[in-house]
Amino acid sequence: MAAEKVVENKQVIFKGYIDGIPKQTDMEIKRTNFDLNQQLPSSQSLLVKNLYLSCDPYMRGRMRDFHGSYIPPFVPSQVLEGFGVSKVIVSDNPNFKSGDLISGFTGWEEYSIITKTDQLRKIEPDDHIPLSFHLGLLGMPGFTAYAGFYEVCSPKSGEYVFVSAASGAVGQLVGQLAKLHGCYVVGSAGTKEKVELLKNKLGFDEAFNYKEELDLDAALKRYFPEGIDIYFDNVGGDMLGAALLNMRVHGRIAVCGMISQKSLSDPKGSHNLSNLISKRIRIQGFLQSDYLHLYPKFLEQVSSYHKQGKIVYIEDMNEGLESAPDAFVGLFLGTNVGKQVIRVASE
Amino acid sequence: MAAEKVVENKQVIFKGYIDGIPKQTDMEIKRTNFDLNQQLPSSQSLLVKNLYLSCDPYMRGRMRDFHGSYIPPFVPSQVLEGFGVSKVIVSDNPNFKSGDLISGFTGWEEYSIITKTDQLRKIEPDDHIPLSFHLGLLGMPGFTAYAGFYEVCSPKSGEYVFVSAASGAVGQLVGQLAKLHGCYVVGSAGTKEKVELLKNKLGFDEAFNYKEELDLDAALKRYFPEGIDIYFDNVGGDMLGAALLNMRVHGRIAVCGMISQKSLSDPKGSHNLSNLISKRIRIQGFLQSDYLHLYPKFLEQVSSYHKQGKIVYIEDMNEGLESAPDAFVGLFLGTNVGKQVIRVASE
Repeated sequence: MAAEKVVENKQVIFKGYIDGIPKQTDMEIKRTNFDLNQQLPSSQSLLVKNLYLSCDPYMRGRMRDFHGSYIPPFVPSQVLEGFGVSKVIVSDNPNFKSGDLISGFTGWEEYSIITKTDQLRKIEPDDHIPLSFHLGLLGMPGFTAYAGFYEVCSPKSGEYVFVSAASGAVGQLVGQLAKLHGCYVVGSAGTKEKVELLKNKLGFDEAFNYKEELDLDAALKRYFPEGIDIYFDNVGGDMLGAALLNMRVHGRIAVCGMISQKSLSDPKGSHNLSNLISKRIRIQGFLQSDYLHLYPKFLEQVSSYHKQGKIVYIEDMNEGLESAPDAFVGLFLGTNVGKQVIRVASE
Repeated sequence: MAAEKVVENKQVIFKGYIDGIPKQTDMEIKRTNFDLNQQLPSSQSLLVKNLYLSCDPYMRGRMRDFHGSYIPPFVPSQVLEGFGVSKVIVSDNPNFKSGDLISGFTGWEEYSIITKTDQLRKIEPDDHIPLSFHLGLLGMPGFTAYAGFYEVCSPKSGEYVFVSAASGAVGQLVGQLAKLHGCYVVGSAGTKEKVELLKNKLGFDEAFNYKEELDLDAALKRYFPEGIDIYFDNVGGDMLGAALLNMRVHGRIAVCGMISQKSLSDPKGSHNLSNLISKRIRIQGFLQSDYLHLYPKFLEQVSSYHKQGKIVYIEDMNEGLESAPDAFVGLFLGTNVGKQVIRVASE
């Protein structure tokens, strides 16, 4: 057995279940020791160094004590878990070897032992694709955009598409895929800067700041005088209610985010559902994990679009694990611009 | 030109646009003269004697001054319009002849001139099918049940199905089709009498009176400990919110009625929409008129089921045109038991 080789392992600890919007004080940084030569717990295990961690809104759902969802809650006093890009240091698993780059669930810490390895993906290094893109453009958010747009929205060229939280990790790709599909695309976001990005960098036809609109229904009528065929809903709440008023006959609404409602213990009701009938609207909730058979096709197509310059992707990169709690909290305040990622270590 | 042959023609007149639940005083009975030998306005026209008229909740939507729906509003001071079974007295239309029985849009009056004839259906007389069934079991409500259940709900044998307003014109057929399809079916209704009918006459596995339930979520958990695969929603509002809490993963909700919300100018919000995502629920609004290509198959299948005794159909028959306003108002109070029909005249 190899001699101990102990390094410091900073961790982000989940302090306990919360109500409302996450606060920095719901998490704490803990410094522990970590033996790089430790015995791994099973023949499938990996010891990895985490390079990039992903801040995603769905993680808020794991901060409440509710076990009926598709993913279990975090364990109080334990390290947070999320998507990451990691480098394999030690592998007992025949599918991975030391030096491999992987993406998948890991701990919010500098080093992790990964025992559940069946969902991990090996990353083929590519000079044209930053590693962190495997958490965004080519990771769960990007695949959410892809599966949601093509499989849930049933898009047709020429249709009118509205995307909320449009500069976010998912929205920015939805809008660009919709443009490539020949749709007319309008996005909403919460700052002037994001609106400018949508129009000038991400190629949306129009964009607006929902915080400057007193009447969301009127705003949508202004941008969609002919109505909306497809609403890709990342926020829920009042925006969903306003969109329902503006859908066209046989309109489709893909629902995957509802960030506006995530932190409410008594979420607001959604109005205007009677429009569902007269306009024969379909609302479909979805999770990207139901479409994983399409992931290889997605990876190839979106990587190719990116290399051809047809798709850009905006990241908001924070430096250092210590910045993770703040970055996560910022998702719910809208302070991030683009996909929020934490750089934990350079390769 | 034939000599005048004037008869009395009682009519139900729409007095003007309304708010809230319809009242008898929103309509009035008018007695006019009608010349059975009058010149018809076009070469497509029919002069008919109305035998049965249908009271349907969607008609409430035509009592407000809103032109953006799938059907235009009623015209104040004019006769109401609705589905009816009528006998052709005079035909200028080559597709129909005197004596034919037809179903389709007609006036709420004893005699009507029908100028829009492309949606009319000729009824083949059948000793085993009461004429009025062409307004219910074999008419728009029955076809709504059929198209909604088979085309919108994507049912599988063994699934758990919940139907609201289950003894109504649509719900009673949905439940029976679901039973024939091998599903477990529970219905809700608003009186003890209706609950008994659901269980003892319509073959539902279980039924409950929603007015006796303080907590609809708890009621649904009692009847569906495993959750709901399919919710056929005829009411909207609180029941939809409670159903959302009890849907299973990949559940489907067909929305076609929302009678609880029809008379509200500010309908209540629907809660619990965030369940859409974690459970990947599909909500689909629909209208039977989008599925008319299936009507012949429906007519054959459901008539056959009825003749074999596999499907029964409960009607609430009022006598005489004068009873029509009261019967229509009763839809919104839940006083009808089964499909509400008015017998205007015997053949």
